[in-house]
Amino acid sequence: MSAMYPIPMLPGPVSVPDEILAAMRHNYPSGDLETDFFKLYAITGRGLARLMGTRNDVVIMTGEGMLVLWAALKSCLKPGDKVLAAVTGIFGDGLGDMAAGIGCEVRKFCLDYNKTLGDLAPLEKMLEDFSPDMIIAVHCETPSGTLNPLEDLGRIARQHGSLFCVDAVSSIGGVDIQADAWGIDVLLGGSQKCLSAPPSMSFLSISPPAWERIERTGYQGYDALIPWRSIDGEYTCPYTPYWHGLAALHAGVQRILREGPERVFARHGEVALQCRDGLQELGIELWPAPDSTPAPTVTAALVPTGITWHEWRARLRARGLVVGGSLGPLAGKVFRLGHMGSQAEQRLMTDALAVLREAL
Amino acid sequence: MSAMYPIPMLPGPVSVPDEILAAMRHNYPSGDLETDFFKLYAITGRGLARLMGTRNDVVIMTGEGMLVLWAALKSCLKPGDKVLAAVTGIFGDGLGDMAAGIGCEVRKFCLDYNKTLGDLAPLEKMLEDFSPDMIIAVHCETPSGTLNPLEDLGRIARQHGSLFCVDAVSSIGGVDIQADAWGIDVLLGGSQKCLSAPPSMSFLSISPPAWERIERTGYQGYDALIPWRSIDGEYTCPYTPYWHGLAALHAGVQRILREGPERVFARHGEVALQCRDGLQELGIELWPAPDSTPAPTVTAALVPTGITWHEWRARLRARGLVVGGSLGPLAGKVFRLGHMGSQAEQRLMTDALAVLREAL
Repeated sequence: MSAMYPIPMLPGPVSVPDEILAAMRHNYPSGDLETDFFKLYAITGRGLARLMGTRNDVVIMTGEGMLVLWAALKSCLKPGDKVLAAVTGIFGDGLGDMAAGIGCEVRKFCLDYNKTLGDLAPLEKMLEDFSPDMIIAVHCETPSGTLNPLEDLGRIARQHGSLFCVDAVSSIGGVDIQADAWGIDVLLGGSQKCLSAPPSMSFLSISPPAWERIERTGYQGYDALIPWRSIDGEYTCPYTPYWHGLAALHAGVQRILREGPERVFARHGEVALQCRDGLQELGIELWPAPDSTPAPTVTAALVPTGITWHEWRARLRARGLVVGGSLGPLAGKVFRLGHMGSQAEQRLMTDALAVLREAL
Repeated sequence: MSAMYPIPMLPGPVSVPDEILAAMRHNYPSGDLETDFFKLYAITGRGLARLMGTRNDVVIMTGEGMLVLWAALKSCLKPGDKVLAAVTGIFGDGLGDMAAGIGCEVRKFCLDYNKTLGDLAPLEKMLEDFSPDMIIAVHCETPSGTLNPLEDLGRIARQHGSLFCVDAVSSIGGVDIQADAWGIDVLLGGSQKCLSAPPSMSFLSISPPAWERIERTGYQGYDALIPWRSIDGEYTCPYTPYWHGLAALHAGVQRILREGPERVFARHGEVALQCRDGLQELGIELWPAPDSTPAPTVTAALVPTGITWHEWRARLRARGLVVGGSLGPLAGKVFRLGHMGSQAEQRLMTDALAVLREAL
């Protein structure tokens, strides 16, 4: 049986605290039948809504984060619909490709993968010409370790009558998000990042205009959202619900609410700063450009010169530190420290930085 | 926190034994990175293949059983494809509707919901006229408590060049299934029935002709099968894998293999017989017709005359016994005892029958 790494620094799945594992230890009765399950569902949804800064409905599904990405696109869009993807990294590019894969006409507003959204004038121009049904963006571009400011994009989306859908899988619960104030119609999250639970559950908030579109689209599937619209009132799920998974997610939410979301967000910011300062002290170059916003949940840096990613990873692993590589064009070039959820701890980061120093 | 019922007799999710819960207690490292995870995936797949009687590939996905139902239909079929659904109950009817929902031309071969497949001549006639791309059937019709014999249907499907897809969610691991001998191309299962794990994982076997069709269809989504074709060789999942869920499913498979599948299947048959005999002794009428095959995993019976289903359920619950109702046209009329997986125990059935006697 494999044990968690001595110094876990992957950008998800993160190390799961005992109190969250404890929630999975029970022999629960049937979630289909017990009002206790639906109460837990409602409480967990309200807690998530608080972390997402929304009064919209929150739906919680059984499946990894990719489930809600597909759920949002397939439930809201039909072939031929127009989608504008704000691309500042691999995940944003992938979201655009997913929309294209279901037959949408997709245009991408692309920045370099070490940049974050800033001057939106060219994007707004594109938007005026294209009139998309939906704008999609990624809040925390995990592979790049960057965080896109979204407030202005949401305002623009609303002005143009486009739905605004945001992948915030690796930021919800670690970063202050104000979905309603920022005009986000569909906000996507997962259990294994800042919520510190295993990768079994995913969730999303859905605005009234998004619900309208979902009803109109009428999509059917495991990832269909329609059946979830009335779950609170009717106490029926489209499939047997997973009590253990919901209980773990609930424990993850409670952990944040108990400490206080503001304190948790501040802690993420502090540890991220500690990480960036520490890396720069060691002469390791950060990946995000100086004028972009680094993510408070994950830090991306260049693999030190004179060593391959595989060697670097092996050296760190030999000392107990497990970090992430990156993906696509960043693979082999960028490594990442995930300091989100249970891993946003100053002491853990101190240990990680000590290993990095030794390994250089 | 809700505790499992004193006498759990729901036809899934079943009571989860301690040894399976124990597998979920660990703080596992990243399933994306560790070869231990992929070894566990391969071992679990081989164990499931043995229970399914197949040498075909087995894919294990994160999500409830409905996930693999959609995965099979959407990955194999395109709009306009022809599907013949053998309908002997609510689930078979629903599978046909799911295929229609994705744009297939669906014909249903329907029997009364208390019957099982027998004389296939009229179905074969339909098949000759219709030449379907796929035949779909349900092995254990859970809402009816019946088990369809499938060998002859598989032979006919093969003769006509149709793919044969079977929902065996509530029979795999409790009933002898010989997918290869019976000519089943796609066999669908879930974790929370005879495998005695929580409802987090689902799995399916895929024959070479089914893989060919899946490649041709090119479907994309959370439930897409293409990315899983090479998971053994390449060690990559289309999303972050769920180690806790796989470990629970693995523990469920091992539990059966340790006791011996033949012994486990025999035990299911014995407890089912005990259930049917016990109910009939109490004057409770069985739902399946005398010339149909009752399921060894779940028994359906008529709610006693002179009492509503809601009253009946309440009386049983008051004595610690929780049974299932039924669905669709059987709702309110039929109740069910699920004696599958951990619940296929003679002593538990004796307790259940004692409660039923008291409650009459």
